[in-house]
Amino acid sequence: MPSASLARRAAHLSSVMPASNPDDKIAFDSGHAFPGVLPDLTSEAADALSRFRAETLQYAPRAGLPELREWIAAHMRADGSAVTAANVLVTNGAKHALDLVCRLTLDEGDAVVVTSPTYFSAIPIIRSFGATFIEVPQDKDGMDVDALARLLDHASAAARLPKFIYNVPDFHNPTGVTMPLERRRALIELAARHRVLLVEDSPYRKVRFEGQPVPSLKSLDTDGTAVIQLGTFSKLLAPGLRVGWAAGATDVLARMAQLKSDAGSCPLTQRVIFEFCAAGRLDAHTARVQEAYRAHRDRMVGAMQRELPEVSFQVPNGGYYLWLSLPAGVDGDELARRASDAGVIVIAGSRFFALGGGEQRGRFIRVAFSHANLDEIDEGVRRLAAACHSLGTSTGAAAGAAAV
Amino acid sequence: MPSASLARRAAHLSSVMPASNPDDKIAFDSGHAFPGVLPDLTSEAADALSRFRAETLQYAPRAGLPELREWIAAHMRADGSAVTAANVLVTNGAKHALDLVCRLTLDEGDAVVVTSPTYFSAIPIIRSFGATFIEVPQDKDGMDVDALARLLDHASAAARLPKFIYNVPDFHNPTGVTMPLERRRALIELAARHRVLLVEDSPYRKVRFEGQPVPSLKSLDTDGTAVIQLGTFSKLLAPGLRVGWAAGATDVLARMAQLKSDAGSCPLTQRVIFEFCAAGRLDAHTARVQEAYRAHRDRMVGAMQRELPEVSFQVPNGGYYLWLSLPAGVDGDELARRASDAGVIVIAGSRFFALGGGEQRGRFIRVAFSHANLDEIDEGVRRLAAACHSLGTSTGAAAGAAAV
Repeated sequence: MPSASLARRAAHLSSVMPASNPDDKIAFDSGHAFPGVLPDLTSEAADALSRFRAETLQYAPRAGLPELREWIAAHMRADGSAVTAANVLVTNGAKHALDLVCRLTLDEGDAVVVTSPTYFSAIPIIRSFGATFIEVPQDKDGMDVDALARLLDHASAAARLPKFIYNVPDFHNPTGVTMPLERRRALIELAARHRVLLVEDSPYRKVRFEGQPVPSLKSLDTDGTAVIQLGTFSKLLAPGLRVGWAAGATDVLARMAQLKSDAGSCPLTQRVIFEFCAAGRLDAHTARVQEAYRAHRDRMVGAMQRELPEVSFQVPNGGYYLWLSLPAGVDGDELARRASDAGVIVIAGSRFFALGGGEQRGRFIRVAFSHANLDEIDEGVRRLAAACHSLGTSTGAAAGAAAV
Repeated sequence: MPSASLARRAAHLSSVMPASNPDDKIAFDSGHAFPGVLPDLTSEAADALSRFRAETLQYAPRAGLPELREWIAAHMRADGSAVTAANVLVTNGAKHALDLVCRLTLDEGDAVVVTSPTYFSAIPIIRSFGATFIEVPQDKDGMDVDALARLLDHASAAARLPKFIYNVPDFHNPTGVTMPLERRRALIELAARHRVLLVEDSPYRKVRFEGQPVPSLKSLDTDGTAVIQLGTFSKLLAPGLRVGWAAGATDVLARMAQLKSDAGSCPLTQRVIFEFCAAGRLDAHTARVQEAYRAHRDRMVGAMQRELPEVSFQVPNGGYYLWLSLPAGVDGDELARRASDAGVIVIAGSRFFALGGGEQRGRFIRVAFSHANLDEIDEGVRRLAAACHSLGTSTGAAAGAAAV
């Protein structure tokens, strides 16, 4: 997460700056939204604070506003999951939902399965409960379920099964990979066989640029107890609203609600979101978001191919990020420092490995195409290329020589 | 906390109902605000969602909006505490702040000091970290510091000092008691001698009806490391905003910020609050709140004296509650059930004892005068009296007999 002053500054820059002064750093690090797609919620807020004032300014029910829970359940049913409002707990964003899952399930020393790499914000949350990590490798189709099967067999033999498997099956953060259907089925079956809970974190599911959605893990959870899906309005609408949800079995959700120490999530933001969605504004907004981020992705992919042909990456069909595999001799941590000096913020790949990453540790960086505007994307990639070439890669040195 | 449907219903009732149908239950249980003093925040929200959109709809800094932290620090300095913005962490309400204190300080089996009785929502939060409780008795001046001194001496000898002392020194919840200055000094000195952290939870500090404020524990914390003060806008402005804070030493606050799993509290509600406060609207609003709740208290005190002379209570100079000591033969749990059947919701005193309450367990109920309107207060006390008399107290029976 960048500092807010940086975020505000970048938001300001995106409208006025010529994208050339390296003191005005370009943010490729954050999961911030592109300022151009932030919705106008003023009329919803006016309604929420007048017509619904006695609701929005009092404590809310701990499980969330009933209408919003109904809406989320309908939204999930439209996505293939057999849920009702009773299966939905409103939280202060998806990270809070993950925190509540940890609170419910983890004791000191318990194990949790994550991919290698995994979403870097999940790591300290899980670690703060004293849990240990079991890392599973990934390939172009996501979590390697065969490798997981071997790990779970070992763990089962040692009576040390993990408490849950955490995964981002759609536009995985950071790799951008989406898991195909057959592998999802295999994952569900494997988890069910060992009775290990699956936690499906899917913030980017609707941020799809092309192709058809793959059924969610939750939609494949036929008896409703195998998967807890974490959702959020951060990527659907706006991160600042801090409203997300967990969807799972009613008894599990009821216990998670008891562990909420927040006296109910903010009813004002819940009402604003519900009014926006109930008015039917979300579909058009989602289309606008998809169109904007598709253009951002295309612009960044083009800039990378032009400026940094020596890095490789899989082009994602959705989400916010490219996961760049660096040329030999370029270390991700060092590149992130140099890039910052050159005026573009990226995140070193090492931060995405729960167990340090081993030989993969220095091989990657994550760049977000979400927040910067199109001109900043070009300029930011130029700065990143300059930083990379200053580390003396062969291709970079050659390109530098050719330019002389 | 009542169900939201009940809360909404009661909010609705307060404007239209004749306060006579026992199916329309009157809520004396909740910490909800009186609907008549909920502020009009529509212009602040319009500003927050237009002029400040790039701030309010993106992720906020984890420690809170800088301007709001500055405002809170100035608000605390005006109350005698030597703090700056660096001493302030914005949270999702004061309960979230307590949760973060627990996360930072508690391991399984650690002890925490609470008063007997104590704020009932603090009990499950502290307990969820596997902590045990040390209860300290109270008298009309609050926590018995001599008794605490003996308990800490014992604990110290056993090398089992508690991790912190939790107290509500202003208009204690549930008893309404405010701790006088000399006892506050003694408490600070005692805690400092044993190097045990003091957690001062003071949501009602500004909800004072008469008399001068007593210096806060935080203002008496001369080196700034002895006390963490928990504050909230729930009672200053509106509960639904879910914005509170913790104020303490900068290193402690920085570690608490790291433990926030919420990606920063909601910037929209923070901005709405800041604009309201920065525009100078808070003082007039506070005066209005004090006037309203003073009238509510007076009405409830009068109704109790008229309808239920057999209960005794200390008239509080602020806050939301009366703590009723019941006549012999009336059990608080049973009375709470009967009262609900009679159409008024109260909270049994037993819920406020972290260790069960022993012989005090059944002797009290807590009634809130905050949420109900004046007519509902009269009607609610009549219903409570009927419930109490149905349990056959001597005075009640006599009154009943006299009425025949």
